[in-house]
Amino acid sequence: MSDYLQSIHGPADLKRFSNSELVELAAEIRQFLLKTVAHTGGHLAPNLGVVELTLALHAIFDSPRDKIVWDVGHQSYVHKILTGRYDQFQTLRQFGGLSGFPKPEESEHDAFATGHSSTSISAALGIAKARDLAGENHKVVAVIGDGSLTGGMAFEGLNQLGHLQTDMIVVLNDNEMSIAKNVGALSRYLNRLRMNPKLRRLKSDIQELIRKIPRVGKVTVEYLSKLEDSLTYLVIPGMFFEELGITYLGPVNGHDIAELKVSLRDAANRGGPVLIHVLTVKGKGYELAERNPQRFHGTGPFELANGRKTEEPSALSYTEVFSRCIVDLAKSEPKIIAVTAAMADGTGLLNFSKHFPKRFFDVGIAEEHAVTFAAGLAKQGFHPVVAIYSTFLQRAYDQIIHDVCLQNLPVVFMLDRAGLVGADGPTHHGVFDLSFLRHIPNMTVMAPKDAAEFQDMLYTALHTNGPVAIRYPRRAGLTLEDALAYVPLPLGTAEILLEGKDIAIVAIGSMVSPALEAAKLLKKSGIDCTVVNARFVKPLDQALLLSLLPNHSKIITVEENAVAGGFGSAVAEFLTGQGVTGVRLKALGIPDQFIAHGSTEILLAQCGLDAEGICRAVRELNLPAIGIRASL
Amino acid sequence: MSDYLQSIHGPADLKRFSNSELVELAAEIRQFLLKTVAHTGGHLAPNLGVVELTLALHAIFDSPRDKIVWDVGHQSYVHKILTGRYDQFQTLRQFGGLSGFPKPEESEHDAFATGHSSTSISAALGIAKARDLAGENHKVVAVIGDGSLTGGMAFEGLNQLGHLQTDMIVVLNDNEMSIAKNVGALSRYLNRLRMNPKLRRLKSDIQELIRKIPRVGKVTVEYLSKLEDSLTYLVIPGMFFEELGITYLGPVNGHDIAELKVSLRDAANRGGPVLIHVLTVKGKGYELAERNPQRFHGTGPFELANGRKTEEPSALSYTEVFSRCIVDLAKSEPKIIAVTAAMADGTGLLNFSKHFPKRFFDVGIAEEHAVTFAAGLAKQGFHPVVAIYSTFLQRAYDQIIHDVCLQNLPVVFMLDRAGLVGADGPTHHGVFDLSFLRHIPNMTVMAPKDAAEFQDMLYTALHTNGPVAIRYPRRAGLTLEDALAYVPLPLGTAEILLEGKDIAIVAIGSMVSPALEAAKLLKKSGIDCTVVNARFVKPLDQALLLSLLPNHSKIITVEENAVAGGFGSAVAEFLTGQGVTGVRLKALGIPDQFIAHGSTEILLAQCGLDAEGICRAVRELNLPAIGIRASL
Repeated sequence: MSDYLQSIHGPADLKRFSNSELVELAAEIRQFLLKTVAHTGGHLAPNLGVVELTLALHAIFDSPRDKIVWDVGHQSYVHKILTGRYDQFQTLRQFGGLSGFPKPEESEHDAFATGHSSTSISAALGIAKARDLAGENHKVVAVIGDGSLTGGMAFEGLNQLGHLQTDMIVVLNDNEMSIAKNVGALSRYLNRLRMNPKLRRLKSDIQELIRKIPRVGKVTVEYLSKLEDSLTYLVIPGMFFEELGITYLGPVNGHDIAELKVSLRDAANRGGPVLIHVLTVKGKGYELAERNPQRFHGTGPFELANGRKTEEPSALSYTEVFSRCIVDLAKSEPKIIAVTAAMADGTGLLNFSKHFPKRFFDVGIAEEHAVTFAAGLAKQGFHPVVAIYSTFLQRAYDQIIHDVCLQNLPVVFMLDRAGLVGADGPTHHGVFDLSFLRHIPNMTVMAPKDAAEFQDMLYTALHTNGPVAIRYPRRAGLTLEDALAYVPLPLGTAEILLEGKDIAIVAIGSMVSPALEAAKLLKKSGIDCTVVNARFVKPLDQALLLSLLPNHSKIITVEENAVAGGFGSAVAEFLTGQGVTGVRLKALGIPDQFIAHGSTEILLAQCGLDAEGICRAVRELNLPAIGIRASL
Repeated sequence: MSDYLQSIHGPADLKRFSNSELVELAAEIRQFLLKTVAHTGGHLAPNLGVVELTLALHAIFDSPRDKIVWDVGHQSYVHKILTGRYDQFQTLRQFGGLSGFPKPEESEHDAFATGHSSTSISAALGIAKARDLAGENHKVVAVIGDGSLTGGMAFEGLNQLGHLQTDMIVVLNDNEMSIAKNVGALSRYLNRLRMNPKLRRLKSDIQELIRKIPRVGKVTVEYLSKLEDSLTYLVIPGMFFEELGITYLGPVNGHDIAELKVSLRDAANRGGPVLIHVLTVKGKGYELAERNPQRFHGTGPFELANGRKTEEPSALSYTEVFSRCIVDLAKSEPKIIAVTAAMADGTGLLNFSKHFPKRFFDVGIAEEHAVTFAAGLAKQGFHPVVAIYSTFLQRAYDQIIHDVCLQNLPVVFMLDRAGLVGADGPTHHGVFDLSFLRHIPNMTVMAPKDAAEFQDMLYTALHTNGPVAIRYPRRAGLTLEDALAYVPLPLGTAEILLEGKDIAIVAIGSMVSPALEAAKLLKKSGIDCTVVNARFVKPLDQALLLSLLPNHSKIITVEENAVAGGFGSAVAEFLTGQGVTGVRLKALGIPDQFIAHGSTEILLAQCGLDAEGICRAVRELNLPAIGIRASL
C-alpha cells in the first residue's frame, strides 16, 4: 500500500503523479474511505465508485480555478480528501465536522453546494455563462449520475446547454443506479450505449465498407454513389445527446485512470458542450458493496470484515411500520397504488413492490412527475400513496397545489424523514413541510406521536376523499403492541394526554413525546401542564383549542418544523382570528435559519426541541408577565 | 359559411361529418372563435391553431370514454365548443361563466384540470395506467405544445412512458412557440424534423438501395452483406423519442383534417406509446394573429377588423415600470443579468433583451432550471434578476430553498401577477407566494404599494447581498412622477401613512391603497385608524409593530395572499412570540379555498379585499369585545 495521501494538500500535488502512481493512490484512497466510513457512516458505495474519476478530474483540471459541480454531492468524499480535507476526514458528517456534501464555506474547491438531485447542469451552466460574461477562461464540469439525469431539471439544463453552445463538460457517471437500480426509458437507452461501445464508430465503418465495394458496372456505381449520399443523413446511437447539440464521448471505463484522463483532456480541448459517458461500478473495490450497492449507498457505522452494522437500530422505525401496514391495507383494498421516486427501499415500499408489483410504480428521480402521475391515477378512482422524503417533496410543491389539491384528489403523501435528519444536514432536513403544505386548500396534514397512531393515520388517510399528507421522522425507537390494528381518526381531532392547568403544551408528531417528558419534569418543580397531542396541523381541532382557554392563560406549541408558517403559526392564526386576547402564545420549533449537520439529538437540543428545551420555554413563559404593552 | 355548430351537442355528433364538411366546420369555428374572443378576450392564437387538430381528435376518439388531456389547457376552447359548451361560450372567462382552461367540474369531457405547463404526459400516463389496472379499454391522449415539452416534467413523463410501454398517444402540437418564440436545443431539433419530413423513410430507402446493387463478384456480395448487417444498428433522425421507446409519427400537417385523421387512427391502432408530431400555425386563419402570434396569445377584447385593443389600459402597470427600471439600472451595473422562463414579454424583459442581449437569458418553460442557473451566475458574482409569474415560481420552490437561499446568493426574484389575476382563474392566481417564501431562511420578501416604491424596492434588492423577492400584481393603473428615481429602503422598514388610534390597519403591497381608502371612509363614520404600509413581509419592521401597541388595542393586517402562513400570520407569530397579549389581531386575505376566475374587482370584493371589505372588517373588530375567554 502506498503512502501518498498525507502528502497531498491540494489537487496541484496530483499533477506530478504518473498514471501508475495514481493507480496506487486510488487503492490507498479506497482503503482510507473504507476505514473511515466504516467508523463514521456515510455514502460509501457512491464514493468507492468515483475514486478513479475524481483522481482523473483533479489531475486534468485545475480546481479551484476550474469549477467542478458534483450533482447530489454525496460522491464528493474523494474530492474532499484530495482538496485539503484529508486530516479532517474523520469528522465527516459529525456535528461541527466536515459535511457529507459539497459546501463552499468549507473549501474553495466546492464550487457549488449540492444535496438534492439533478441541479448540477443548471448550476454549472450558470457558472460557465458567468465565466463567458466576465471574459474569463476556465473549465466548468458537472458530474452527474445516470439516476440524477432522469430528473426533469437535468433535461432543462441540457436543453439550454445545447442551445447556448457554451464551453462546458458534463461527466455522466453511469453506474446503472440512483440509490436503487435505475428505471425508465433513458436508463434502458444508456444501457444500449454501454452494450455497444463500438456503435459510435459505425458510421465511418460503413462509409469505409462502401468505399471498398468494387465499382463494377454502371448500375453498381450509381447505387453506391446514391448510398453514400444517403448516409450523410444517417445518425448513430448516442444521438440522444447529439440531437440536443451536445457532443457525446464514450463510453469510457470509469476505473481506468489513463483512459479517463485521455477522454477528459479530449473533452477539454474540443470546447463547446461535451458529455462524457463514464461507466463506473458502485461500491467498486469492496466486494460486499459491489454485490449489494443499495445497502452500502448510505450506511451507518459497520464492520469492515463482514459489513454488519455496528449498531443495529434498537427498535421499529416509522418506515418499517409503513412498510408493513401498506401491504396489509392493500390486501383488502385493491384501489391502493404505491408511487415513489427512486426511494423504494428508503420509504419502505420494497415489500409492497414484491407483494403487488403491478400496483407499484418507481418513477425514478422525478418527484414532479410522481405527484401528477398519482393525480392521474386518483382522477380515475384509484387511491395512490406517494412516498417521498419531506425534503424531496419540496420539488413537487406546484404539482401538489395544481394537480392534486385543486381537483381535491385523494392522493396520500407519506413524508418520511420529516424534521431534522441528522448527519445529512441542511439539504436533507425536512423542516418546511408543515409550512408549505398547510396553506394549500383542500389539504389535510397529520403527524403521528407514535407507531400505533401512525397506523391509524394511514388508515384514516386512505379513507379520506381528498389529499392527505402524513409526516414522520427518520428516527427509530418505536414500539407497537397492536401491529396492524387501525382506529379511524375523525379529521381534525386532537387529544388531551395530560390534564393540567394554566400552561398547555400543544405538541405535534415527534414532539409529543418530549412534551410529555417535559411535563413530568415540570410537575416535579410544581408546574402543572396540560399536554395536547394535536395530531392534525390541518384541519386544526378548533373546539379543543378553544376549550383550553378558560383554564389556560398560556399555550405553548411544539413542532419539529420551521416556526415560520408552521403549526404554531396555524394555532396563532386561529386563536387571534377568533378574537382571543389575554392568552400568551409561544411557538417552539426550528428557528429561521438553516440547521447544520450532526446527530439529531444535538441538533434538537440546540433548537430547544427536547424535554429540557421545552421545560426551559415553559419556565420562561411561567415567569410573571412583564406586560409588554404597559412597558412601552 | 356553414351552420353546423348549433347542431353539435357532443363529439358523437361529429362522427357523421365527412372530411369536407369538417373543413367547412373548421371555418365556422374559426369565425365563432374570433367573434367571441374579440368580445371576451382570451387565448385566441393558440385556439386558432388547433381547430383542425381538435376536430380530428374528436372525430377519431370517443370522448369522454377516451380521455384527452390538454397541456396548459388554454387551447381547449374548440374542445369546449364541440363538447356541449357552445351555448355558454360567450361567458368565457367571466365570473360564473366557462373557465378558460379544462375543468372536470364543468364537463365530463375535461379529463383532467390543467393550467400550468408540462403536466399532461404525467397526468395522462396516470390515467392510462389506471385504465390498465382496472382492465378497461380506452384511449388516452395528451396534447402538448413544443413549448411545454421543454419543461423537465414532460421529459420525466416521457421517460416513464417509454419505460412502461403503456398504450398512450402524445400529440406534439408544434407551432414553434410557447407564448413567445421557442428557444432551446430541443426546439432546434424539432425544427430539423420539420425541415426533413422524408428522412423518416430513409432507412428503408437505403435498405432498398442496397438490395438493388447487382451482386457481382464475391467481394461485392460479401461487403453488401456486411453492409446490410451494419445498417440494422443505424437509426434515423426523429430518434430522440424513439430512443426513449416511443414510436414517432410525423410530421403531420396540423391543418389538414384528412391527414390528421389518418395519423391519429394509425397511432390508435399501433398501441403502445406513440408520439405524433403535428405542425400547426399559431393564430391560423386570422392574418393579424398569424403575423403576430405573441400579441394574440392571450388578449383582452379587441376590434376584429384591425386587432386594436378595445380598452387600452389606462395607465402604467408594474410590468412596465420594471421593464423601464431594469434597463436603466443595468446600464450602470454590469453585473445585472436578467433570466426568465418563456415570459420575456409578459414580465417586461423584452426591452432588456434588446438593450443587453448577452445579459439576457430566456431558458424556455423551465422554472426549476431558471432559478438554479441564476444561482450559478450569482455564485460567480453576478446579480441575476429572475422574472417569473408568482404562480409559476411555485415550480421552483425547492430550487429557491436549496440552490439560492441555502448559499445565501444574491438572486432577485420578480414575482409578477402576484395576487388575484382575474380571468385566468385558480391555476394562475398568485396567492401563495408570501406563504411559500417567508419561511425560507435568508430570504427577504417585499411588496410595493405603488410605482415609486416599486422602483425603490428593485434598487434596494439589487443592493442587497442575499436573495430578495418582490411581488406585485398584474393590475395596471399606476402613476409615477419621478420615473427612474431611486431611494434605497433599509431592510425591514415599514412606514406609517396615517396616524390614528385604537385600530391600526397594517397593509402590504396592493392592499395599501384600499386600506387608505377604507381609513378615509371610516373616518367619516368616526373611526380613526392608523394605516401602516408594511413594505416588508420579511424581515418585519418589528420596532414599528411594537410601537403601535401602546396606542392600538386592535391590529388588522391586509394582504392579497392566503391568510394561512401569509403576512398576517407573520405579524401574529411575531407579536405572540413577544409575549404580547391584550391586543386583538385580525388577518384579512385570501381564505383557505381556491378562488374561481372572474374580474379581479369581483374576486377581490368577494374576498373582502377592497375598501368596503376592509371597512366591514374594521367595524366588526371595533364592536365591543365579547371576550371569548370569559364567554366559555
